[in-house]
Amino acid sequence: MKATVLHAPGDVRLDEVPDPTIAKPTDAVVRVTAACVCGSDLWPYRGINDVSEPSRIGHEFVGVVEEVGSEVRSLRPGDFVIAPFMYSDNTCPHCRVGIQSRCDHGGFWGGPDPDGVLADGGQGEYVRVPLADGTLVSTREAPDDSMVPSLLTLSDVMGTGWHAAVAARVAEGDTVVVVGDGAVGLCGVLAAARMGAERIIAMSRHQPRQAVARGFGATDVVEVRGDEAVAAVLELTGGVGADAVLECVGTKESMLTAISAARPGATVGYVGAPHGVEYPVRDMFVRNVGVAGGMAPARQYLPDLRDDVLAGVIDPGRVFDLELPLAEVAEAYAAMDERRAIKSLLRP
Amino acid sequence: MKATVLHAPGDVRLDEVPDPTIAKPTDAVVRVTAACVCGSDLWPYRGINDVSEPSRIGHEFVGVVEEVGSEVRSLRPGDFVIAPFMYSDNTCPHCRVGIQSRCDHGGFWGGPDPDGVLADGGQGEYVRVPLADGTLVSTREAPDDSMVPSLLTLSDVMGTGWHAAVAARVAEGDTVVVVGDGAVGLCGVLAAARMGAERIIAMSRHQPRQAVARGFGATDVVEVRGDEAVAAVLELTGGVGADAVLECVGTKESMLTAISAARPGATVGYVGAPHGVEYPVRDMFVRNVGVAGGMAPARQYLPDLRDDVLAGVIDPGRVFDLELPLAEVAEAYAAMDERRAIKSLLRP
Repeated sequence: MKATVLHAPGDVRLDEVPDPTIAKPTDAVVRVTAACVCGSDLWPYRGINDVSEPSRIGHEFVGVVEEVGSEVRSLRPGDFVIAPFMYSDNTCPHCRVGIQSRCDHGGFWGGPDPDGVLADGGQGEYVRVPLADGTLVSTREAPDDSMVPSLLTLSDVMGTGWHAAVAARVAEGDTVVVVGDGAVGLCGVLAAARMGAERIIAMSRHQPRQAVARGFGATDVVEVRGDEAVAAVLELTGGVGADAVLECVGTKESMLTAISAARPGATVGYVGAPHGVEYPVRDMFVRNVGVAGGMAPARQYLPDLRDDVLAGVIDPGRVFDLELPLAEVAEAYAAMDERRAIKSLLRP
Repeated sequence: MKATVLHAPGDVRLDEVPDPTIAKPTDAVVRVTAACVCGSDLWPYRGINDVSEPSRIGHEFVGVVEEVGSEVRSLRPGDFVIAPFMYSDNTCPHCRVGIQSRCDHGGFWGGPDPDGVLADGGQGEYVRVPLADGTLVSTREAPDDSMVPSLLTLSDVMGTGWHAAVAARVAEGDTVVVVGDGAVGLCGVLAAARMGAERIIAMSRHQPRQAVARGFGATDVVEVRGDEAVAAVLELTGGVGADAVLECVGTKESMLTAISAARPGATVGYVGAPHGVEYPVRDMFVRNVGVAGGMAPARQYLPDLRDDVLAGVIDPGRVFDLELPLAEVAEAYAAMDERRAIKSLLRP
């Protein structure tokens, strides 16, 4: 089959690789019908994360079950499925409280599973899925093609934006600030709106992203950064600060902005993988501002968000502004790297 | 009147000072019937916090209203009242969401109020109370003398331990770890028990404090520290970690222990004023461990905790193991400084 391999920073190719097969009785093999490129795929692509050898890449995909192992109970060939960005058994103590991203037996796509067998990356024609019963969420029937982009976001960006809003404890009537206008931040806006936030202040300096944010429910846009952005939030909230803040970037500056924009007693829900973050310990103590979140348990939210998508309640698929055949994966990366696209969808 | 003045590190005296009077129509003057020494009073006493000039000290007191200003509506002379460790108007936007410790018009005992008039310290015969309606919580009738120590803890340590448990989101059936065996940590144990925690693991190396912890509901005691303490918690929880952790110390080591002992997805509720704390950013992200809390809004919890004390449901007064006349305030400090006492109660 063909699958995406990152050979070196900036060098991503569609290579011929071995077809996946059922390696364990809890496996499934899925034929990928849509995949996409994540902002976090750009870290190794840009050489920020180490790339010491060619490696499979991609962790967001939907598709159709081709084959299941003898112990798979909840799925059958032909089922349309959505994969979260990590696989998990959904039965260990951490999964049972909803933190599937810390599953005792889980792991990442594109690398070896706990037994050393490759779990294929998501940007390919087929994927061997470990722990298929725990990992995959099905719609049974293939959804209308117009639903596919939105369902695909549930693999990662929508589940991650949702996690930020859950962690920030967004409640009906709240004033919410969202720091970050990438696909996750935009999905955070949509999550806050779905949870009933009354006012949603999106921080964005890019017109096309502002437009998506407004489409998702943002009521205000702040174009400045840092101290100026905090001042703008205080101005918009009568000096009080936001009831909840979603931090969807992961830099030191974005986290400081998020914490400073939070009103006393509020929580910053963060999902941006931290790069150089330092917490302002004293300010957090004096103002009772908490931080919660982390690597999102996308699997936890998948069934409910799937139902929301299928019912037409949310349409997170609007974050995709570029669609290409899988063969053009290199351009899908380049367009996101050069900020020509918010998020690229790939069709094998 | 007589009131406690800290002249220099280690030099605390009962001095003759001006009698307080009603300075503003929202003031009350309270005759103090019981006060106490806080662990945080030891910071300037030990010279850890700067002591540049003699200053009034003490922020925990109960007493009887002597006189009220013309705009005070909820109190009358003769009322028995409990004062939280900060005064607050209880009407500003931060107070209205329960963060009275960040009141727009609030402040600390023993220093000038926002208009520059002294708000007396709590360790004296009388106190001028700014914003009396917002600050003081009354029982109307004087309570039985046996209730006074427990009501006095609501000024600070019990409200603060309660805040740690609220911030950590302690729920019925939880396994809770409490880091810190000072009066606040012990009250944290009592708070967790009151909230229905099934298992409470207290970290303490001091026999008398362990005894109070067990009396308050601790089911297990861990006597080791740091990595060994974390290992002990994991051993006690089948490798999972605690559902909620209360951090009641404020050092770098205690915070790391608290975060490491928390299960994925759990929250560390912290109330120890941070001294040298650095958060393990990456570990918190990967395991979805949050931190919440800060300077406790003791005023928020006072009415409910007062009712619990009066109903005999909780008896936090057991943290006092030394009672002295106010004239012996120097010994009250020395006994706590030398760890001969957990907490000293003073009777003017």
